Amino acid sequence: MQKNVVLLIAVWVLTLAVPLDAQPTSGLRAQIDAWVRANQKAIVTELVQLLAIPNVAADKENIRKNATAIRDLLARRGFAADVLETAGNPLVYGELNVPGAKRTLLLYAHYDGQPVNPKDWKQASPFTPILRAGRMEDGAQDLGDPLGRQSYEPQERIYARSASDDKAPIVAILAAVDALKAARVSPSSNIRIVLDGEEEAGSPSLVPAIAKYRDKLTADAMVIFDGPLHASERPTIVFGARGILTVQLTVVGPKFPLHSGHYGNWIPNPAMRLVKLLATMKDDNGKVVIAGFYDGIPSFAAEERAILDAVPDDPAALQKLFGVAGPEAPGLKLQDALQYPSLNVRGLSSAFVGADARTIIPDQAIAELDIRLVKETPAERMYELLVTHIRKQGWHVVTADPDDATRAKFSKIVKVTTRGEGTNAYRTSPLLPISKQLVSAMTAMFGEPPVQIRTSGGTVPIAPFIEALGFPALSVPIVNFDNNQHGENENLRLGHFFRGITTLAAVLTMGQGG
Amino acid sequence: MQKNVVLLIAVWVLTLAVPLDAQPTSGLRAQIDAWVRANQKAIVTELVQLLAIPNVAADKENIRKNATAIRDLLARRGFAADVLETAGNPLVYGELNVPGAKRTLLLYAHYDGQPVNPKDWKQASPFTPILRAGRMEDGAQDLGDPLGRQSYEPQERIYARSASDDKAPIVAILAAVDALKAARVSPSSNIRIVLDGEEEAGSPSLVPAIAKYRDKLTADAMVIFDGPLHASERPTIVFGARGILTVQLTVVGPKFPLHSGHYGNWIPNPAMRLVKLLATMKDDNGKVVIAGFYDGIPSFAAEERAILDAVPDDPAALQKLFGVAGPEAPGLKLQDALQYPSLNVRGLSSAFVGADARTIIPDQAIAELDIRLVKETPAERMYELLVTHIRKQGWHVVTADPDDATRAKFSKIVKVTTRGEGTNAYRTSPLLPISKQLVSAMTAMFGEPPVQIRTSGGTVPIAPFIEALGFPALSVPIVNFDNNQHGENENLRLGHFFRGITTLAAVLTMGQGG
Repeated sequence: MQKNVVLLIAVWVLTLAVPLDAQPTSGLRAQIDAWVRANQKAIVTELVQLLAIPNVAADKENIRKNATAIRDLLARRGFAADVLETAGNPLVYGELNVPGAKRTLLLYAHYDGQPVNPKDWKQASPFTPILRAGRMEDGAQDLGDPLGRQSYEPQERIYARSASDDKAPIVAILAAVDALKAARVSPSSNIRIVLDGEEEAGSPSLVPAIAKYRDKLTADAMVIFDGPLHASERPTIVFGARGILTVQLTVVGPKFPLHSGHYGNWIPNPAMRLVKLLATMKDDNGKVVIAGFYDGIPSFAAEERAILDAVPDDPAALQKLFGVAGPEAPGLKLQDALQYPSLNVRGLSSAFVGADARTIIPDQAIAELDIRLVKETPAERMYELLVTHIRKQGWHVVTADPDDATRAKFSKIVKVTTRGEGTNAYRTSPLLPISKQLVSAMTAMFGEPPVQIRTSGGTVPIAPFIEALGFPALSVPIVNFDNNQHGENENLRLGHFFRGITTLAAVLTMGQGG
Repeated sequence: MQKNVVLLIAVWVLTLAVPLDAQPTSGLRAQIDAWVRANQKAIVTELVQLLAIPNVAADKENIRKNATAIRDLLARRGFAADVLETAGNPLVYGELNVPGAKRTLLLYAHYDGQPVNPKDWKQASPFTPILRAGRMEDGAQDLGDPLGRQSYEPQERIYARSASDDKAPIVAILAAVDALKAARVSPSSNIRIVLDGEEEAGSPSLVPAIAKYRDKLTADAMVIFDGPLHASERPTIVFGARGILTVQLTVVGPKFPLHSGHYGNWIPNPAMRLVKLLATMKDDNGKVVIAGFYDGIPSFAAEERAILDAVPDDPAALQKLFGVAGPEAPGLKLQDALQYPSLNVRGLSSAFVGADARTIIPDQAIAELDIRLVKETPAERMYELLVTHIRKQGWHVVTADPDDATRAKFSKIVKVTTRGEGTNAYRTSPLLPISKQLVSAMTAMFGEPPVQIRTSGGTVPIAPFIEALGFPALSVPIVNFDNNQHGENENLRLGHFFRGITTLAAVLTMGQGG
């Protein structure tokens, strides 16, 4: 997942003690699980060897080592495998056709990882994986080299950069293919795999690659393996993700800070004017009152309503962890909140606070906003609505610093800028046949329905790729929620990893009925 | 003047070309002016020698050198002079009784200066005075040692720390006493002089000194010599100064920043809540709408109205300089604005802006306020009004970081803290006999009424001293408005300095009639 999806909050303390490693199994599950148990060491070895190759996107030499290593792992399974060149880091591609299959799935993951700050890691190097008996934060013992063991306990964890994000899914795909072969069960779809080498840098080469490799990137549906499970740690399917538009508002004040004694009450204060402007944007219950902000969003179908209500969120525990008395709107459910666009003040600044505060009228006041988008509210339209709202409040909107003539003419001047064009949301309807087939397959595999996330709150850089491909995309995360993704001491819980192979087997064998 | 009265804005470009060095003179003025012209070198020498002694309040050794040097200068004029010990830096005191005088004036100035950052000065040292042919910022030539000359042009300036703030008035008092003696004109009042050695550090020893030196600090009125003239550069009397109360508001959000995608629209955003709270405090015309904020402020007497209207402000020029289209309230006059308490947002901060901005819900949002006070609105009451207003908006007010139980109980929590108890305003009525006598004396001396400032906007640390003394206080600034006070390259325009001696002569000889 990308940088601006960082700060995943460790809600692990909330995790219910779901006996995820001891659930009733379907016939296939029993076979897969048994195979995984018997081959733990080989699977972990493949992962650990991959984690030992540094994979920061900017490290071109090692990135290429990753790409060729993974290509070789695919080829060893009989995939037609290749390294596809792009203007940036290469894609790793693999293709495995299944006789008689009527559907082609494009599986997506990424082999690059977040930048590292080695001194913040509690181990020799982020690229020298170690095994721990459990969560480091709970004081779990360092068990040293993960390959010094023959088998593993579910609660044990591998600590290394990309252990969870996103090399574990790559190895899980390979293991699932092996496990199905051992079980003599054929995948139900042709498989195409595309592995991104720049996801943590925003996936700039993904959309351009479509034109160049159109044949390879064509499928009936895409399944994305990235990100953590729902906080309940139950098997999870994600149907969409919000987009984002970031906007900076700078209210223009006097050309330089003025003495608040000599001019306070006389020269307008840009900080006060900014807060009055921002205050017009939301009501006291957190509803955005910018005209048209929620236009086009239909009410939920009964089936969707049921999907939202079934998500096992624990709002009381979250609120306790975060130290807040309640949600922004009384009674608002988390999943409901995520189905709508949001207006978030992510930063405020004017002059100084604390020890540096001075008795001045500031020369400007800045607000940083992020508008989270849903499928029905594209970035471009939301930007127009925002600017229209600001103008309606009597403001003169500029996009660059105003000159003297502009300053002399307009009392209320605000500079509005955006960082790029924004990233739109995507959402595959949970009511599509492919969505229902995946839910059925996972329900059959695990004996209960997966957690179904209609829209996840964060933004993924893959959204434009999904939009450009034009076929349905579903996301199947497999790694633990508390994986310290993007931070130091990233880790992978092995029980989750092994169960993820079973999840992959469900994906690869899902039925094709309506 | 104190640190928080820094940031005097250089409105020199606005100064009308008032021929202040060539005005019609009263008989006494002609004598004083002639004496000053004849003794320029001696007067400047005394100032330059004093400026050569470093005078930062923390530099105890040099502070004492200043004190004894000034005591000796006073003694040389026949003052009963002494260095008065306090818990901090000593006061310099002098007393000159005039046979037959029925009134005693306490003259106040300070001999300490602002801290210096020598490398920012365009001369060898802030304590090695140099002469320039005019304003440095206008490219005026460095003329070297001021004592290399026998006479001076009015537009020439001495550059040194405390040249204007506040050693020039000390030397001007001494020169005025000499000049009156030469003119065989007796002062009309007994003279007591008290010179503060810690004004730039907030004058902590001044009020405690009253109990210890009550006899010496008793008078009928105090005249303060500090600060610059009105921007018009005309002779000026100041009758009062606004006080200040600084308040910090911290709106409490989640315990740590949260991902704005995962929780945006659900967890309340403290930045948005802060702006909505601040927005309730002022209307769109800059009027503070906190109940009771303006209570007790009477409408102006006709005479006061005339005084306010007579101030030669140039709002159009100020607005052009500052780059603003107009005042906070349409048509509001600067002098009128300063007669009322203000509510100023002097700083805002929440998370990050600019390149550091992140897609988070911030964990807190801070606003720094300063409330400028007038005589009728003491700090304590204004604090209560503010807190009452905040509570009325549904907020739970705390004065320390809330614990978990408080966080769980209250949705809207704001921490309200103040920096000290604030400094109250002072104002001596311009309608008092002593006020009118001073205006008359200056009018007679210069042939036109002085600029009369009913309340200056900034806050002075001497206000509690004035309140504790209990007798009227008037301020008579003499130095140029564009003196770079508190900054690097502080300077004194010599034409102003010499005219200041004449102003001092007016003060010392003012009539005693009603």
